[in-house]
Amino acid sequence: MSDLATRFRELWDEITPVGRDAGSGGYLRYALTEPELRLRGWFHAQAERRGMPVIDDGNGNLFAWWGDPEAGDAVLTGSHFDSVPHGGAYDGPLGIVSAFLAVDELRAAGVTPTRPVAVAAFVEEEGARFGVPCLGSRLLTGALPADRAAGLRDMNGVSFAEALGARPAGARPELLGRFAAFVELHVEQGRALVDQDAPAAVASAIWPHGRWRFDFTGEGNHAGTTRMADRRDPMLTYAFTVLAANKEARLRGAHATVGRVSVEPNATNAIPSKVTGWLDARAAEPETLAGLVEAVHGKAAERARRDGTEVALTEESATPLVAFDGGLAGRLAALLDAPVLPTGAGHDAGVLAGHLPTAMLFVRNPTGVSHSPAESATDDDCAAGVTALARVLEELT
Amino acid sequence: MSDLATRFRELWDEITPVGRDAGSGGYLRYALTEPELRLRGWFHAQAERRGMPVIDDGNGNLFAWWGDPEAGDAVLTGSHFDSVPHGGAYDGPLGIVSAFLAVDELRAAGVTPTRPVAVAAFVEEEGARFGVPCLGSRLLTGALPADRAAGLRDMNGVSFAEALGARPAGARPELLGRFAAFVELHVEQGRALVDQDAPAAVASAIWPHGRWRFDFTGEGNHAGTTRMADRRDPMLTYAFTVLAANKEARLRGAHATVGRVSVEPNATNAIPSKVTGWLDARAAEPETLAGLVEAVHGKAAERARRDGTEVALTEESATPLVAFDGGLAGRLAALLDAPVLPTGAGHDAGVLAGHLPTAMLFVRNPTGVSHSPAESATDDDCAAGVTALARVLEELT
Repeated sequence: MSDLATRFRELWDEITPVGRDAGSGGYLRYALTEPELRLRGWFHAQAERRGMPVIDDGNGNLFAWWGDPEAGDAVLTGSHFDSVPHGGAYDGPLGIVSAFLAVDELRAAGVTPTRPVAVAAFVEEEGARFGVPCLGSRLLTGALPADRAAGLRDMNGVSFAEALGARPAGARPELLGRFAAFVELHVEQGRALVDQDAPAAVASAIWPHGRWRFDFTGEGNHAGTTRMADRRDPMLTYAFTVLAANKEARLRGAHATVGRVSVEPNATNAIPSKVTGWLDARAAEPETLAGLVEAVHGKAAERARRDGTEVALTEESATPLVAFDGGLAGRLAALLDAPVLPTGAGHDAGVLAGHLPTAMLFVRNPTGVSHSPAESATDDDCAAGVTALARVLEELT
Repeated sequence: MSDLATRFRELWDEITPVGRDAGSGGYLRYALTEPELRLRGWFHAQAERRGMPVIDDGNGNLFAWWGDPEAGDAVLTGSHFDSVPHGGAYDGPLGIVSAFLAVDELRAAGVTPTRPVAVAAFVEEEGARFGVPCLGSRLLTGALPADRAAGLRDMNGVSFAEALGARPAGARPELLGRFAAFVELHVEQGRALVDQDAPAAVASAIWPHGRWRFDFTGEGNHAGTTRMADRRDPMLTYAFTVLAANKEARLRGAHATVGRVSVEPNATNAIPSKVTGWLDARAAEPETLAGLVEAVHGKAAERARRDGTEVALTEESATPLVAFDGGLAGRLAALLDAPVLPTGAGHDAGVLAGHLPTAMLFVRNPTGVSHSPAESATDDDCAAGVTALARVLEELT
């Protein structure tokens, strides 16, 4: 193991116990709850140890500065601490730990940046507590009004404003204007780098994606006495639609998932009266995504006619394509000799990309698993990620 | 409308408001809750009005006697008051109301029975409150020990013994021995009589039936970033199994339903780690039922290999074939010139059939819908049911 890998492991182990669930081995680090507040405390301590003053933007986002926070033209890096329920260790924290270590690497190498470097910890990236992903970056950029964010409530009825201890500040154009670029390092959420035998990659784009609700209605009835020919069973239409979504996505090289379902009355001896399924769909191009959803809807409607059921489609959310700065991605890929990959997941980098040149680096995940305790990265790959991030920061400053 | 249909409607309307949910139009008449206790009070009042003494068997089952309760060789009729959640008006109460009206018909015709007639109201037939269907008849016959029944708890933690106000008496062989036959009149739970254009039928058998739990396990993962080829999605295996169950049941003239499903973590943006589906399956012959479940399991296992998932099958309950007394059914069918039909649903008559000659009469349900507010019967068909039941009681006494 390299020296850097050893230093990574030492720093990493300072936070590995925080918010870990003994049962699942996954993390429960919801934004502004005790485990995440401990990680924010750790962030302040790390910044202090390095002589980096910390600014809170009034929305819960933290920025630790190497260089003059007022100078402008700064290079921003970092990620988030919060997790999905029983999520993995790396999603988020890897980008923050790597940022501090990259600063250490540059300092050890005697590099004196010509521009400030800032390390960010964004709040509520996953949306697991208040329901809106990238809440912190959306507030900072003004994509989400402060009033709406203030009133968002968690499962226990606690509002975001209450959790934050104050009404959020909302858009901070002056602060945002001090950043010339943002680079977010993140654990990979698929197996592309395993196949390519590379420890890190540069992101090209975030696929357009969205959520569509399919409401299938039929006729509730007795499971024991109703002849098959007399049924109008929406579970059949639902099941057919799940398989159609899988098939249509494969045909298009897109992603489709039905991971959530709700059934009325959901009783063993009752033909359901209603089944609702949520389709998560993503594709490289908006037209592919639209074609996919249309094809699934068409198949569902066709099957509904056979089943004597009805289907209604509602678009619950849709996020357009985020193309990261092409020049920046190409420059970093050449610098690092790294592959360039798209991703299907949203990130704070996707929000900031609308406001400043933004790039993402991915660190190889041997399991390819994400949002699960099985998510992983080797210490050597994490060290390679720190080295890559340090080179990128040096290049950009 | 005939006189009898008018009398039916008058008596029927005394109970139609009890326990009706204004929202769904269905009934919430759980055993020994306020609405069902009101119906039991109504039962006592009807018995008293007719000079019929009421015996409680100590298990919550009520028996109103026309003739000497001690004479033995009695003909028992009746049904139950309790409902499934938001169930229909007829399932259960129709058999009790028809029984009192059949007694009235026989008395008005000057019939003096040579044997006693008893009208029963069995407790907790649906199992909607304490989870065990036919709880009252199972206690009376000793199929369920009193101790086990006493400890059954409802959703609020109230035990059956607490709801009953005493430890149940359990098996009552002496009381059971006084009955020479049982005839339960019930609303039809399918559309067979609509097609046959007959107001009533005689039951041949209760199909063997059971519940099987399918646990599908895969790998929880990120819906956005996991390539289709890298997935092990148990929702796909579940969906395929739902469609296979439907197809295999149709091929065999059997019934198969998957009306209940549970998903972990059941999130829109997560490939599930586990999906559990419950199969309710019923068929005319035990070997058809076994073949059906085996075929569905085989298809599920085959698809699981394709999906990279695993499937585990657990039999949660299995009820064997109940063949009603063939001689009695044939005699009643000839008497009434009525068709003979099997049923896929369990009844107190199915429990008592193991102890004494038992028959069931079905009254036509124009919607064919059961366990739902849409369940229905015309007043004229209900009157025809009363007439049929009166003729059967006259024949048997």
